[in-house]
Amino acid sequence: MAITVVGSVAFDTVETPSGRVDRCLAGAATYFALAASYFTDVRVIGVVGEDFGPEQEAVFAARNIDIRGIERAPGKSFFWQGSYLENLNEAKTLQTDLNVFASFAPKIPEAYQDSEFLFLANIDPVLQKRVRDASPQAKLVGGDTMNYWINDHHANLLETLKGVDILLINDTETKLLAGDRNPIKAAREVLALGPKSLVVKHGEYGATAFFGPKSFPGRNNTHPFRAPALPLAEVIDPTGAGDSFAGGFFGYIASQPELTPAVFKRAMFYGGVMGSFTVERFGTERLQHLTREEIEERFAIFRELTHLD
Amino acid sequence: MAITVVGSVAFDTVETPSGRVDRCLAGAATYFALAASYFTDVRVIGVVGEDFGPEQEAVFAARNIDIRGIERAPGKSFFWQGSYLENLNEAKTLQTDLNVFASFAPKIPEAYQDSEFLFLANIDPVLQKRVRDASPQAKLVGGDTMNYWINDHHANLLETLKGVDILLINDTETKLLAGDRNPIKAAREVLALGPKSLVVKHGEYGATAFFGPKSFPGRNNTHPFRAPALPLAEVIDPTGAGDSFAGGFFGYIASQPELTPAVFKRAMFYGGVMGSFTVERFGTERLQHLTREEIEERFAIFRELTHLD
Repeated sequence: MAITVVGSVAFDTVETPSGRVDRCLAGAATYFALAASYFTDVRVIGVVGEDFGPEQEAVFAARNIDIRGIERAPGKSFFWQGSYLENLNEAKTLQTDLNVFASFAPKIPEAYQDSEFLFLANIDPVLQKRVRDASPQAKLVGGDTMNYWINDHHANLLETLKGVDILLINDTETKLLAGDRNPIKAAREVLALGPKSLVVKHGEYGATAFFGPKSFPGRNNTHPFRAPALPLAEVIDPTGAGDSFAGGFFGYIASQPELTPAVFKRAMFYGGVMGSFTVERFGTERLQHLTREEIEERFAIFRELTHLD
Repeated sequence: MAITVVGSVAFDTVETPSGRVDRCLAGAATYFALAASYFTDVRVIGVVGEDFGPEQEAVFAARNIDIRGIERAPGKSFFWQGSYLENLNEAKTLQTDLNVFASFAPKIPEAYQDSEFLFLANIDPVLQKRVRDASPQAKLVGGDTMNYWINDHHANLLETLKGVDILLINDTETKLLAGDRNPIKAAREVLALGPKSLVVKHGEYGATAFFGPKSFPGRNNTHPFRAPALPLAEVIDPTGAGDSFAGGFFGYIASQPELTPAVFKRAMFYGGVMGSFTVERFGTERLQHLTREEIEERFAIFRELTHLD
């Protein structure tokens, strides 16, 4: 089934110990869409400027991603510049230019109206809620957010979370949102805010899923589940790993007939797999040219990584 | 088969958000021995002062642990005081009194001479090497160390590592010892120093094993293996979790007829299980009164935590 994703389509300039790229195609919705495109049909809602041309369109077209919902506005696309020279696990933001994103008002094309899966990538929770409310047909809604929205737009975020089924955030964001440092208690607090399930991303250590009583119809009690990440010999550029995780995770779920605990768990592994590919090259380069065989091969390695005979 | 462990037997005063205990029985060798005692016979080498009396002896006796190698010296036992009030993941050391440990010269009792397993807990690498050299019968040697020895006693540590088969250290120690921040490259560097296998402990995220060409006779290439840790609702006192991991890990290996990849992997899970029990109470309290049934029950939960159908 098709997924609609709303979020940033951007240009990034990134410096890491492995080198530097200037103005490469990036943005949460881009990473998400590319990763999910290996599993199901993907449709993007976003806004770009006049610097988004045939070269960028071709990246989406090659993966059969529908970008009729990407609005073209006068001016420049969202731009982010970051450095991982000091810490490969955390970007230091050097510059953020919202540009056309500053006045972004998401519009959902008629052709997207039958998307049964909706992913609200990390943008202003007011916009996330607007898209969610305008998508009554969505039977499963995933979402992401970040410290800035948790701290400074808290009330708006709480409204949005009521409409999110699966929230994917990292350790720091979970503790901040919950106001509790213990992972189990923090998860419980977050689940009380609306989401039926919570996926906490641990970067190089994988991710843990916590389930509330409504995660799976007819099941009362599902234990937490942890999907490991593969230790990688070379991390070229960590940008987009979390969005790629979300894309692989949500894409796999959308490709399955039903959301069962087994599907959820496999989806966590696919999320880790897609994240692990992303960091092997700068920007979205690695995500653009994968094969399903490569994905399955790595899935098997991830599975082996924690598998007891 | 029996394990001999050399290391500290101490008293700890610990403050955590859950409360405070004064002068509870502790020390790396104590945690290790208690955890390993659920799997095999354990013999301890260490030194204590006049404050170590019948009450402490009874803790070891109840678990059938041989303490004939614990020397009694005039003065006080090793004492450590730490606080986790600021950060439950990392102790702030408030006081360290070496006391009788300052002049510790390990002696191996005659009765320990047939121990086929030897564990060198975190002490001066010169002492670790002395015990290792005096144990030619040991067919598998495990070891631990810490930042202080890596930084300030580097040459001695390198000599000791040549005689260690399985090194168990944490992320920070691995990077420091290797001089490389990438986990895979750091593991390769450490394996080049002598150990056949390396277990990197990640605290709440579990542990990853890396294997060199001599980890398992007749096998050339064994992929890394990651054992998760269970997210816990309540961490009362994290002290000793790593030593308990080592005890469960090494104890399980010593209980098995042969060290195969499957045994190594199961041992990683048992290590995580024993660490998870330790942190549920202050000091060694939880480790003193476990049953094998409780251990197997938690092993099953750990297994389920990452198990794909």
